[in-house]
Amino acid sequence: MTIRGQIWGEDAEAIERTLEETDADLARYVREFAYEEVMARPGLDLKTRELAAVTALVALGAPKELATHLEGALRVGASETEVRETIIQAALFVGFPRALAAMKLLAAVLHRRGGAEPPAGPI
Amino acid sequence: MTIRGQIWGEDAEAIERTLEETDADLARYVREFAYEEVMARPGLDLKTRELAAVTALVALGAPKELATHLEGALRVGASETEVRETIIQAALFVGFPRALAAMKLLAAVLHRRGGAEPPAGPI
Amino acid sequence: MTIRGQIWGEDAEAIERTLEETDADLARYVREFAYEEVMARPGLDLKTRELAAVTALVALGAPKELATHLEGALRVGASETEVRETIIQAALFVGFPRALAAMKLLAAVLHRRGGAEPPAGPI
Amino acid sequence: MTIRGQIWGEDAEAIERTLEETDADLARYVREFAYEEVMARPGLDLKTRELAAVTALVALGAPKELATHLEGALRVGASETEVRETIIQAALFVGFPRALAAMKLLAAVLHRRGGAEPPAGPI
Amino acid sequence: MTIRGQIWGEDAEAIERTLEETDADLARYVREFAYEEVMARPGLDLKTRELAAVTALVALGAPKELATHLEGALRVGASETEVRETIIQAALFVGFPRALAAMKLLAAVLHRRGGAEPPAGPI
Amino acid sequence: MTIRGQIWGEDAEAIERTLEETDADLARYVREFAYEEVMARPGLDLKTRELAAVTALVALGAPKELATHLEGALRVGASETEVRETIIQAALFVGFPRALAAMKLLAAVLHRRGGAEPPAGPI
Repeated sequence: MTIRGQIWGEDAEAIERTLEETDADLARYVREFAYEEVMARPGLDLKTRELAAVTALVALGAPKELATHLEGALRVGASETEVRETIIQAALFVGFPRALAAMKLLAAVLHRRGGAEPPAGPI
Repeated sequence: MTIRGQIWGEDAEAIERTLEETDADLARYVREFAYEEVMARPGLDLKTRELAAVTALVALGAPKELATHLEGALRVGASETEVRETIIQAALFVGFPRALAAMKLLAAVLHRRGGAEPPAGPI
Repeated sequence: MTIRGQIWGEDAEAIERTLEETDADLARYVREFAYEEVMARPGLDLKTRELAAVTALVALGAPKELATHLEGALRVGASETEVRETIIQAALFVGFPRALAAMKLLAAVLHRRGGAEPPAGPI
Repeated sequence: MTIRGQIWGEDAEAIERTLEETDADLARYVREFAYEEVMARPGLDLKTRELAAVTALVALGAPKELATHLEGALRVGASETEVRETIIQAALFVGFPRALAAMKLLAAVLHRRGGAEPPAGPI
Repeated sequence: MTIRGQIWGEDAEAIERTLEETDADLARYVREFAYEEVMARPGLDLKTRELAAVTALVALGAPKELATHLEGALRVGASETEVRETIIQAALFVGFPRALAAMKLLAAVLHRRGGAEPPAGPI
Repeated sequence: MTIRGQIWGEDAEAIERTLEETDADLARYVREFAYEEVMARPGLDLKTRELAAVTALVALGAPKELATHLEGALRVGASETEVRETIIQAALFVGFPRALAAMKLLAAVLHRRGGAEPPAGPI
């Protein structure tokens, strides 16, 4: 299976279509360079890659891509605990606000995957 | 009163519950380390702390936490003018886009607290 | 025509009103310093200025202001292709997540200006 | 005394000359817009302004300007403790690495002003 | 052994002393909260934690702390290849400039640990 | 001539060697993907691309890569004035500290290329 297939799972077709409609060339770079060339490199297992991706996206504060890779991390074998620990640790390096926003997003991702209702109140 | 009580005011219970539902351990670090240990330190008054928090959050571009601390700054004694000046000054250091986004958020916070209708149009 | 008029086009009145309602002093700095003093300087053409503004806003991840300058770039003479290339190139310097978010925003801007339906699915 | 004079103190002449040699127009905007227009606004005292400037520069990770405003904060009346507290608190919002780098810079600034030897070892 | 001992290795004493001389309270938070509370949590192995720390520090562009955790990652069991892959992957999320700066720093760290001469030329 | 040759000029060989010694795979992505695939795309002229690169690197605060592209912008036909204007404008979007640091770096680049002594004093 492609790296994209492993990370995107059952959303792969929808994500590919959205990418393609957004910009065909940028979509191609995402598919061919980002996923099938760089993320597919040997030397680092895919679970660690996805947890590193989560860390980078917590640092950036990029919610859409973060949601994709929170779910991707779970799909390629990270446990919910490992994802939570990755986010908690990020608070040390990039501060609590980014970590809190990421953790709320994780709650929404877990809910979508069949978990409990995500918290709706203010932070 | 706890530092959290002073900054979160009448929203304290809702914020605590949201934090708890998001991640119990991260919530504990926010409560015990961020608020009751660091923000509670002597040597800097709480109003200046909250205006510094506002500056940090304008720099990050983190709207949820920024709204909390815009309201927190007002609750612990900063005037609306002091908050506006803090945001205007931030434009010098982190640019106009972050300052404009923060000022629009302040308008929403002031409206929620009983002020005029916030501006709804495009920026 | 003022620089604001050239960049904001038919939205100028609405943007001015929103700025004014947000904070009259910050609005004045945006109008008088940012646009009519700095952006109006000779020595760099307005199209290149707007493409540089797009790059800065892709880097920041500031969607509201980015939408304004994506549209502004098109208004002052950048082609859709030039704007797309500016965003694609930004991926090299600030990463794919910021570039993807910007390209989706461009799709929404182009749709508003009479183009095709923007992609609605997940990225 | 100008705001620049208050913040830059005995370094004012050297800073002005460096700015002027760097770019005369950017220097003018720094002097006339940043300092004598925005930083000079009433409604927020200069000590709080400088502590907010310190916070913004810790967030950015901009060592040269941060050194200027660490010293500026001390010149306009902030105590060493208040500056230390501002940096410690910033760790919550932008993470420990930025706060540690800033605190090491403060040690160098204090040393230059006649204090103890700054720490020289690795962090 | 403490988490600090595992990550800092033979530099532990020098780092502790530098931290202590920089600010005793911030040093205590780094030791007690960052390392012995958060980094010491179960649920994520230390090697993955250090590779995530590397990613966060590449994103920030914080060279001192990055050098510490590049070395830390190697000390707690990451291979040179795994560290290189973590940096290469970060280029996708935060751009090539941050990744290049980090990779040059890794060369210096490897040299210090007994490897080949680091590249000295311009990038 | 390759895009790298146009941007790197007489430094091309030294830069290639440094890249290669830093990491052969990352070097290959920089050469083949960043320069000869993305920067080489039609649809945006190379001068505008380099001024956009300068803007992105001012926003990041990445001095090594910024120096490369300040010089690159001049090599592919941007005038000193156009580069200065690009930096001055960036102050609006990412703040004065990043713009000042970039302008000092430009002074050093211009000096290296045969211009006047760069300013040496504090900012």
